[in-house]
Amino acid sequence: MEKNGARREVGILLFDEFETLDVFGPVELFGVARQEYTVSFYSESGGIVKNRHGVAVESLPLDNIIDGIDIFLIPGGFGTRRDIQRVDFIAKLKRIAAASTYVLTVCTGSALLAKTGLLDCRAATSNRNAFEWAVGNGPKVNWDIKARWTVDGKYYTSAGVSAGMDMVLGFMSDLHGMAYAEELARQIEYRWHKDRSAYIF
Amino acid sequence: MEKNGARREVGILLFDEFETLDVFGPVELFGVARQEYTVSFYSESGGIVKNRHGVAVESLPLDNIIDGIDIFLIPGGFGTRRDIQRVDFIAKLKRIAAASTYVLTVCTGSALLAKTGLLDCRAATSNRNAFEWAVGNGPKVNWDIKARWTVDGKYYTSAGVSAGMDMVLGFMSDLHGMAYAEELARQIEYRWHKDRSAYIF
Repeated sequence: MEKNGARREVGILLFDEFETLDVFGPVELFGVARQEYTVSFYSESGGIVKNRHGVAVESLPLDNIIDGIDIFLIPGGFGTRRDIQRVDFIAKLKRIAAASTYVLTVCTGSALLAKTGLLDCRAATSNRNAFEWAVGNGPKVNWDIKARWTVDGKYYTSAGVSAGMDMVLGFMSDLHGMAYAEELARQIEYRWHKDRSAYIF
Repeated sequence: MEKNGARREVGILLFDEFETLDVFGPVELFGVARQEYTVSFYSESGGIVKNRHGVAVESLPLDNIIDGIDIFLIPGGFGTRRDIQRVDFIAKLKRIAAASTYVLTVCTGSALLAKTGLLDCRAATSNRNAFEWAVGNGPKVNWDIKARWTVDGKYYTSAGVSAGMDMVLGFMSDLHGMAYAEELARQIEYRWHKDRSAYIF
């Protein structure tokens, strides 16, 4: 695992048709907290990854992660529908997620993680607009449709898109304290929804 | 102006050290509203643009915009401190902004726009953490430190970072109606702060 001083490394999975804010909401928060964190982007083969929102981002190959990473973040997006069927890809995610210190998912990213089996008998949530699809890919998961985000051991999962920011602030609060997370929200002038058990719509 | 069917084109300005969420919060919303909008990224010379959050995005050269654009969006970030001193760059922004149908700024992006003179005698706001700096770059602007976002003719400006998403939803509401904007917020499970006159912290 590559280290940058004492900072924790956040590895963000990209795939074609990732959901923009699933990725960049957390990136903003880890980026502002750059005394403690450094962010890198990974994709299956590395190189430029695109989505239908017009975004094209540079990434490193996933195989660069040898023994897991401090924080492995799996976003959602339409690309999950295709990639969840690919046995090799899911096996690679399982290897990295199992070896990582923390694994965070946003939106339908939890379906990818569920498919690995690592969420079996654990609490998780997902996007309300694709919840049944997520459940179908993880029938042994304790899915919680009422949660904004869930925490079970090293696994954090959030509801759709913008809920990823609330989850990352919750993660920051768990690791560094509530005052730290509140200050981070203030710096980006973000109205943090703090109650992870209460979905907001 | 390049057109993609009947969709409005959103041109997003990038520069080194742009603030991640200033850009990708609005991109998520315009991207989800892709029946009506198409997003492109521009920078002074085109090519890959990077920031300290580890993000590297592909962009087109700003000179590709000949006669303005439907929606020109100017984000903030530490890069504004450098670029605001560059006369040629500000002149280029002024030419494009003056010719565009709508101009939206997020965070300290309003300081760049103020520097062009186009906000003189108009309402505007900016990031609370850099407000005096913004005011110094636009002494004739009607700065409003109490606003979440402002609207004055074709110019929309927002407070810091995450306020850009509230502003874009406000812009969507102005153009397509409140129900449209509310549905967009629901799709990304975002808790929209609807009152533009009330800053939230």
